[in-house]
Amino acid sequence: MSENSLSHVGKDGRAHMVDVGAKAFTARKARAEGRLFCAGETLAIVRDGRAPKGAVISTAEIAGIMAAKKTADLIPMCHPLSLSKVGLEIVMDETLPGFRLSAEVRTSGQTGVEMEALTAVSVAALTLYDMLKAVDKTMRIDGIEVVAKAGGKADYGY
Amino acid sequence: MSENSLSHVGKDGRAHMVDVGAKAFTARKARAEGRLFCAGETLAIVRDGRAPKGAVISTAEIAGIMAAKKTADLIPMCHPLSLSKVGLEIVMDETLPGFRLSAEVRTSGQTGVEMEALTAVSVAALTLYDMLKAVDKTMRIDGIEVVAKAGGKADYGY
Amino acid sequence: MSENSLSHVGKDGRAHMVDVGAKAFTARKARAEGRLFCAGETLAIVRDGRAPKGAVISTAEIAGIMAAKKTADLIPMCHPLSLSKVGLEIVMDETLPGFRLSAEVRTSGQTGVEMEALTAVSVAALTLYDMLKAVDKTMRIDGIEVVAKAGGKADYGY
Amino acid sequence: MSENSLSHVGKDGRAHMVDVGAKAFTARKARAEGRLFCAGETLAIVRDGRAPKGAVISTAEIAGIMAAKKTADLIPMCHPLSLSKVGLEIVMDETLPGFRLSAEVRTSGQTGVEMEALTAVSVAALTLYDMLKAVDKTMRIDGIEVVAKAGGKADYGY
Amino acid sequence: MSENSLSHVGKDGRAHMVDVGAKAFTARKARAEGRLFCAGETLAIVRDGRAPKGAVISTAEIAGIMAAKKTADLIPMCHPLSLSKVGLEIVMDETLPGFRLSAEVRTSGQTGVEMEALTAVSVAALTLYDMLKAVDKTMRIDGIEVVAKAGGKADYGY
Amino acid sequence: MSENSLSHVGKDGRAHMVDVGAKAFTARKARAEGRLFCAGETLAIVRDGRAPKGAVISTAEIAGIMAAKKTADLIPMCHPLSLSKVGLEIVMDETLPGFRLSAEVRTSGQTGVEMEALTAVSVAALTLYDMLKAVDKTMRIDGIEVVAKAGGKADYGY
Repeated sequence: MSENSLSHVGKDGRAHMVDVGAKAFTARKARAEGRLFCAGETLAIVRDGRAPKGAVISTAEIAGIMAAKKTADLIPMCHPLSLSKVGLEIVMDETLPGFRLSAEVRTSGQTGVEMEALTAVSVAALTLYDMLKAVDKTMRIDGIEVVAKAGGKADYGY
Repeated sequence: MSENSLSHVGKDGRAHMVDVGAKAFTARKARAEGRLFCAGETLAIVRDGRAPKGAVISTAEIAGIMAAKKTADLIPMCHPLSLSKVGLEIVMDETLPGFRLSAEVRTSGQTGVEMEALTAVSVAALTLYDMLKAVDKTMRIDGIEVVAKAGGKADYGY
Repeated sequence: MSENSLSHVGKDGRAHMVDVGAKAFTARKARAEGRLFCAGETLAIVRDGRAPKGAVISTAEIAGIMAAKKTADLIPMCHPLSLSKVGLEIVMDETLPGFRLSAEVRTSGQTGVEMEALTAVSVAALTLYDMLKAVDKTMRIDGIEVVAKAGGKADYGY
Repeated sequence: MSENSLSHVGKDGRAHMVDVGAKAFTARKARAEGRLFCAGETLAIVRDGRAPKGAVISTAEIAGIMAAKKTADLIPMCHPLSLSKVGLEIVMDETLPGFRLSAEVRTSGQTGVEMEALTAVSVAALTLYDMLKAVDKTMRIDGIEVVAKAGGKADYGY
Repeated sequence: MSENSLSHVGKDGRAHMVDVGAKAFTARKARAEGRLFCAGETLAIVRDGRAPKGAVISTAEIAGIMAAKKTADLIPMCHPLSLSKVGLEIVMDETLPGFRLSAEVRTSGQTGVEMEALTAVSVAALTLYDMLKAVDKTMRIDGIEVVAKAGGKADYGY
Repeated sequence: MSENSLSHVGKDGRAHMVDVGAKAFTARKARAEGRLFCAGETLAIVRDGRAPKGAVISTAEIAGIMAAKKTADLIPMCHPLSLSKVGLEIVMDETLPGFRLSAEVRTSGQTGVEMEALTAVSVAALTLYDMLKAVDKTMRIDGIEVVAKAGGKADYGY
């Protein structure tokens, strides 16, 4: 299992926060995406101005950015990192219908920032859900994944 | 827009934490589910004992339970609640292949606990991702939704 | 010193979180206000659309609402409370020139919510400062005070 | 708007945490000040020993220092920083009458520490308010501003 | 194993936050104690005024009180509670030599507050350690236990 | 008192977070240990399989690792640090009878990580207590101390 070893699990099978002290500080970035599916009518309420689009979307974007900073507090084995940038964008897409979320996180550090980007997208999607749940009981969060990463060993997408 | 009004958005279009002071304290519960898709080989690593199943799954379950208690800290307009129960179960499913997550949260309060159940599932899925990302770059979090709620106005699923 | 006794300081002079266990649960609310003075040009940048007014003001409003929920984590002797409502409004005022902030918090509990309202205003003002500090080095936060409270022993303002 | 651009707002008008990855790590410091106005009698209670001065002031100083470390958790677009020093001093001033607060924060980092110093002063003032509100309903927090900063582009005061 | 069942572990062996929704809200309190052993010289430094006794002890008392409010954030299966009182007392004892710590926590709730009292003592002891570690490398935290509890099923000590 | 000076207390007797800005960034590590004494029968319940050993011990290990990351949030004058490794091991020892805990923390920073290692052990012990308190009212946390440190001025134990 040499090349398959899980970084956060020791030889004794215990979870631990793996030692990254010998890894180089490099400029790292990661991009994650996700979707919130909702009823077409829900999207129309936001799009047609019956609901304040700004309040719904900007609350979710801010929540996602703040959540990126809490990643190491939420994910037990994540290393705390000093993030140098967090951006999050939410757009409405009638073809889903729903919302598309995309987050990019950057740091100069010893570990990657995939988890921070994924956490930003996840919490932003949860916040959209919270802002809209009074009018829609059928929403679903889907397709949360890392689409690009750079600065580590196995880069792709950028 | 009377019946479509978003609870967390005021008449002036500003986001606020809606007043629930006049609502009754009732026993409320909610159940949310989600999935983490991974490579079949990743699931085999956990299932066949090459990775310690306990460390991966129990770390994710504990992270999800702890996250449920942080919901009001993560979601801007969520009311803080004194949860009376949080349970979270993760099972492996070769047909995905991947992991199925299910959380149940209960409280006696003035608002529902859907967001707490969704947050527990989301953070548990993120933790699985973190524990397995050293061996799998193709994972995807999917299908996070509320499947049952009780104790409020619009109940279903139980 | 009987009528002057500080609630959070014991007879031995030590700080403690005073026992409110014998107090009644009543509907309580409080309103706090504050101001951020800035250069007239800064206000013009936001007002005239050269800076996105929504991003500046809505970020501060959301930060203030979230901070109200962290009050007991910030103020050592504050009791944790389950807030039933938090609202925060920020308006531009050319006569200052600057921004006027107003927060209202409600709960059903054994202690008042003045500190939560004051914390919401303070953190919202700090966030405005942070959003505008790239263009203005002369800002000043002023006049943070409780203007109304109800539900306790010494009510006023409502 | 080139020279007036707000660092935390993108070209699309969305709030984001600006990328500081290309900025140099320099030794930075900032000093912020503020005042809490109270009734003369309140100050006398603390000064004349009828209230334990230590408990009131030291609780506020400790709260302010701890709050400096929470700045990035409170202010949505603030970068997390590893602070190398936080000091906070509160003195009584009969001429106000009230309390004068002063905080100094230092770091070696890519962004300044004005927000950390302002947050320390703000939360210390809120804590004084909380410790004294049982005897004084007329207090007001005033004059919170940055009085000196060094290590960045636009330094002054030191 | 009926009478020995662990409340936070389910029949399936998974950790969960047990359901307390059916338990009565009763007035509950708990008292915990602990000790920090240090060199006699360390105690003398604090006692004889060469170090400011107030800064050392009051910082630890405040840290312990604040930690009691974080108990549910630290202990994975602890229920969040609205504490009605937290008190913490630290005294120097030359016979150890060292410090004796004692905390009392009260609430009206569905679960006991032993963990909150133990957490207050533990974090206060850690803070004493931090304040004194520059002069003493031989300190040891000892004897942290619950000495009295009331309001639940198995009371003692009061 | 030159050589006895407490780092976190200023000449004026106020607590502050000491300036470490001039100290070198070095690879630092620390190891702390502790014990939880319990009834022999409690240990037998876990050891003999009547209680799920994994759920009890792995919950405590994860709680301790997460707590190490919260050290600067709990201990007022602790500097925030970017930890590069946290490991925690809990073993049962019939000769106590009870549990032995050991934590190791590493960083590259300007201050040591003794407090992080001590906090990990303390919170893990508290979590064991919480998981077992339904079956044992006589537990006691004991012997929490630093057993080795390296990378600073006064190293020992490694």
